Formats: sequence, C-alpha cells, structure tokens
Amino acid sequence: MTVRYARWDGPGVPFALVEADGPADLADGELLVEIELATICGSDLHTVAGHRPAPAPTVLGHEQVGRVVAGGPGERVVWSVAVSCGECERCARGLTQKCLRLRKFGHEPLAVGWTLSGGFATHAVLPRGTTVVPVPEDLPAEVAAPASCATATVAAMLDAVPPVAGRRVLITGAGMLGVTASAMAASAGAEVTVCDPDPARRALATRFGAASAVGPDELPAGVDVALELSGAARAVSGCLDALAVGGHAVLAGSVSPGPSVPLDPERLVRGLLSVTGVHNYRAEHLRRAVDFLAVAYERYPFAELVGERFGLAGLDQAFAPAASSTALRRAVVPVATR
Amino acid sequence: MTVRYARWDGPGVPFALVEADGPADLADGELLVEIELATICGSDLHTVAGHRPAPAPTVLGHEQVGRVVAGGPGERVVWSVAVSCGECERCARGLTQKCLRLRKFGHEPLAVGWTLSGGFATHAVLPRGTTVVPVPEDLPAEVAAPASCATATVAAMLDAVPPVAGRRVLITGAGMLGVTASAMAASAGAEVTVCDPDPARRALATRFGAASAVGPDELPAGVDVALELSGAARAVSGCLDALAVGGHAVLAGSVSPGPSVPLDPERLVRGLLSVTGVHNYRAEHLRRAVDFLAVAYERYPFAELVGERFGLAGLDQAFAPAASSTALRRAVVPVATR
Repeated sequence: MTVRYARWDGPGVPFALVEADGPADLADGELLVEIELATICGSDLHTVAGHRPAPAPTVLGHEQVGRVVAGGPGERVVWSVAVSCGECERCARGLTQKCLRLRKFGHEPLAVGWTLSGGFATHAVLPRGTTVVPVPEDLPAEVAAPASCATATVAAMLDAVPPVAGRRVLITGAGMLGVTASAMAASAGAEVTVCDPDPARRALATRFGAASAVGPDELPAGVDVALELSGAARAVSGCLDALAVGGHAVLAGSVSPGPSVPLDPERLVRGLLSVTGVHNYRAEHLRRAVDFLAVAYERYPFAELVGERFGLAGLDQAFAPAASSTALRRAVVPVATR
Repeated sequence: MTVRYARWDGPGVPFALVEADGPADLADGELLVEIELATICGSDLHTVAGHRPAPAPTVLGHEQVGRVVAGGPGERVVWSVAVSCGECERCARGLTQKCLRLRKFGHEPLAVGWTLSGGFATHAVLPRGTTVVPVPEDLPAEVAAPASCATATVAAMLDAVPPVAGRRVLITGAGMLGVTASAMAASAGAEVTVCDPDPARRALATRFGAASAVGPDELPAGVDVALELSGAARAVSGCLDALAVGGHAVLAGSVSPGPSVPLDPERLVRGLLSVTGVHNYRAEHLRRAVDFLAVAYERYPFAELVGERFGLAGLDQAFAPAASSTALRRAVVPVATR
C-alpha cells in the first residue's frame, strides 16, 4: 500500500509531498486510518509562520476525521491530539493530558519513527493510548475534523466550572474555539456575551448562540463564568475583572509566552473567585465534543467556518494568508489533487 | 434574666462591660445560648488595634462554644460566623457564605438591634439562618471555640481541591489556620510542608502533622496543593510558583487590601493550574470542622494553642500584645470575674 504525506521542513521552506510504503504491520493496539479531511488549526498557522517552536521535519495537522482501514472495525472516527501511556504517575492520577510520556499528533519529529503522525497525509497510525471516538456518518467532515482540538478543548473548559445553565458567560476571542464555546455554553442554557476586537467575528459569534457581542472596551461586569480563548493579556485581565462573586475564569488561549497579568489576592479571596488553566483534554472531553457537534451542527453554522479546500499538493497555498477573518479554518482533503 | 456583654466603642477606647436584660422572647427559629468560652481571633486583634474597619459600638467575638438555654434542646454547640437568609439569589445557588443579606457574628453594629451578636458576652442570640452544630461534651472548650472560624475555613479550603491523600501540600503561614490546615491535611494522608518566617511557629507546625517546616526562602517546588493563610503577597506568589502540573492553590489569608501579585497566564494554562479564593464557608464545613476536632484534639496539641484566660472585665488586658508567638489564641470566659 502506498501512502502520501506532506513533510514540513521548517519555516520558509515549501511543503514536500512524499510518497511512501504504508506500514508493513501494526503493533498491538494500533489502528491505521485513512484520512477523509483535515482542518488547519491556528497553531499550525503559527508554526508554519515561524512564530511557534516545532520540530522539523515533521507531518503537521491534528484536526481530522477518517476511517479505520486496519487494526479494527472500519468505523468513521476522530481521535485525540495526545497519546498517553496510561502507566505513568500522572496518568495514574487522571492527568492523562499531561502524561510524562505524552506524544502529540502533528507535533512529532519524523526522526522518532512515527511517520504517519499528522493530519496532512492520506493515512495516520493511531498508537495504543490514542482516544478514538466514532463519528456519525451524516456529520459533515468539516464539522467533525475540529472536534479533536477546538471542540474537545472547549468541552474541557466547561468541565472545569459548575453547570452554566442560567448563568452569565463571557467568552473572549471569537475564533474557532470562541464560537464553539459560545454555541456549547448557549446550548447548555447560558446567557453568552462574546468579546472580540473584530466586528466581523462579533457578528459571527451572534450566529453561534451569543446573546451579545462586544468590543474589548465594552466588557460586561458580574459574569459567573469567563472563558479566555484569545491569549491576549488584556483579555485575561478583562476576564478576571468581569467575574461576579463566586465566579470562575478558565484560561486556554495563553499558550505562548506573554506578559504577566496582575492578580488581586484580596478580591480573589473575598469574591470566592477561581482561575483555572486548561491545556489539552481528557478522553471524555473528545466524546462530549463529538456528541455536541452531532446535534449542534444542525443548529449552528459550523460547516460555514471551514472555507477553501486544498489537496496535499496545495498546502503552501492553504497556509497563505486568508482574506477573510471569519473563514476560521481551511481544509485539506488528501485524496484531492490540487 | 440578666446578661452581660463587652461593648467595643472603637480603637483606643477601653471595652465597656454592660449589664442588660436578656431577650424578653425569641423569634421563631431563634436560639439563646449561654457562652462557655470564646477565643480571640486574629481579626478581632486587628479590629481593636484599628487596622481593620469595623462598626462601633459593637460586640466583638465570633469563635465560641456554648449551651442552648432557650429556643431548643440544651445542647452544647458551636455556630457559624455568618447568618444567611436562605432565600436570595446567592443562597439559592449554594453561595450561602456570600448571601446578599449576610449578617456576621461579632461584626454587627449595636444599632441594628441584634445586641447579643458577639462572643464576648455571657449569651448570644442565634437567628434563624445560623448553622448550629452540636459539640461532644468531652471536647475541651478551648479546642471547640475556634471551630466556627479557623477550623471551618480550613475545611472549606480543603473542599476546594481534590482529595489530598498521598499528595504534597504546602501551607504558608503557621498561625491558627496554618497549624489547623497542617493537621487536617496530614490527617487526610498528605505530605505537608509548612512555611513561616518565625522559627517558633515552624517548630509548632511540626507538632501539627507537618513533615517539614521551612522559611520563606526555602519554599519547595512541585507541590500539588498550596494553602495560603498568611495574607502576604510574597507568600501568594510563592504558592503559585510552587505548584506542580495540575496543582491547586487556595488563598484565604488575603482579607486586607494589598499589592497585586503577577500571574503568568501561559504557566497557568500549560500547567493546568488553578487558583481559588475562600472566604467564609458553608454549613457542611462547620460540621466537618467539629468532626475533625472531635478526633484530632487527642492527636495534636490543639488545647495548647489557647493561652491565658480572661473574664469579660479583663478584655483590655486580653487584647494587649502577647509575649509569645505560639500561644495563638487567648480565651474569654464570660463567667469569670477577672
């Protein structure tokens, strides 16, 4: 069997399309998946632009949907970004997302020998320790693909706070995670305000369940839950300042070095506030992500968030700057030839 | 019936011993309690010294044990600092400790008409909405009295984190709350390190279950839970810096205005850290406090923490500076005459 993957050799170097023999045999517990469609996550864009350290050469891509073709039943599936060992001290206490031997799809150097480890390929090998979740046949591929990154991360954030039904929720940043968070919180019965400096993204958010959308100078006060997805220090501070008594802020956007934000201990104590960081997610969050999308895609325009489609040979164009701020993802369809 | 209470008229003014008629009748749900012993909390010391705003005239004191003499069975009891209405929006969602109509023992101006509202008196009136918890007859009064402030607050802090059995716990500040936290965490199976600048208090902490006690320059790294009880900004930062991946910091000491501390959002996110403020507590925490002390007082020297005893007429001496840093509380015995 022949497989193809797009090799990334570092910032400024065009992608190389590589054809190779597929795996001769699979280890116990491994699955071979044929990739139907992958989406390009914002972190992939940052990596290719040279703004984010990453090993090279590598196969990028960690949001995708595919079908099992060896090692298990031929289900249509999505799978976790992270692969956990299940045996280390952190896995033993439930911190599987911070496994001491963690490996991540779309993040491993080719040199380690796990070649089919990224989404920008015709196939992927899923090692034992990958969370694999079946996807309904009628769920559009472009809706399913982000489940393993954007949607599952949002599910992990909402798992870090009490139920949001009837609560006021602020979301800062209206990218893929922000609008997903808006839809998920609104579906759960929250009153959602989304903050983004871009008016087009604010308008988009109101189509994903947000009752209101505001600019950075118009943050509301007295929210019960604040979900920070922009990574901007100003937004982190804004989330903390916006909390009502008993409020919870969950940060997930701050994945790059940045300035500290001031924390007022007395306000935190007297206000019974909490601030929690979320990075990666656990198995149940990917299951919740798929369950959510399977219903929500008919109610919210998730399919519209994915714009142009490219083949593996077109990755350089796929990573070129986008003209629109509201096509939040581009897609890679490995069987296409463009 | 005649009652007596120590009226506090403001900083720099001696306490006035007032004799008055007891309540003619009790409202539905009210209890009248005869106070056996009260302890002087650190916040009372700050109030009397003028370092903490408080209404005057008032009856101070909110850590005490007594016996019900009207309105209910004659049980020996402790009761909550806070009185919640049970009906407002915050009570409805379980935030009883931040009730919108919250009243607090030892914190109400006499002008509101709830005269017997403080512990430095022969009697107290417990309005409906007070949490009242029976106390075993054999529990020494000086051990039971701090339950309603120090011990219950520590119980609320440990309720804000996952179980500490087998986990590394850092506690900053070895006052009454710190040594109580040390004993409670150690009893639950944690490996406890206590930090305090005072060598005598560090030595004390090791008698309350701490495996080690260190100075502010010797904070450990990689702790799972950090409990901050000193209120010092440096200790707050130290607790945040000491957390391992997946770690939880709980702040309770910062109840006065102070400098902000820098929060690194990326470290919080990538480390899956959380920071939570605790102030006041809920009913179940007072029950846990009593359950804990009823067993722990035979294992840890809680009774030694309460030093000299004074009568209501001796409050001015009772509030004079202490010579020792390890007699963490003085006691007020209302029936005594000194």
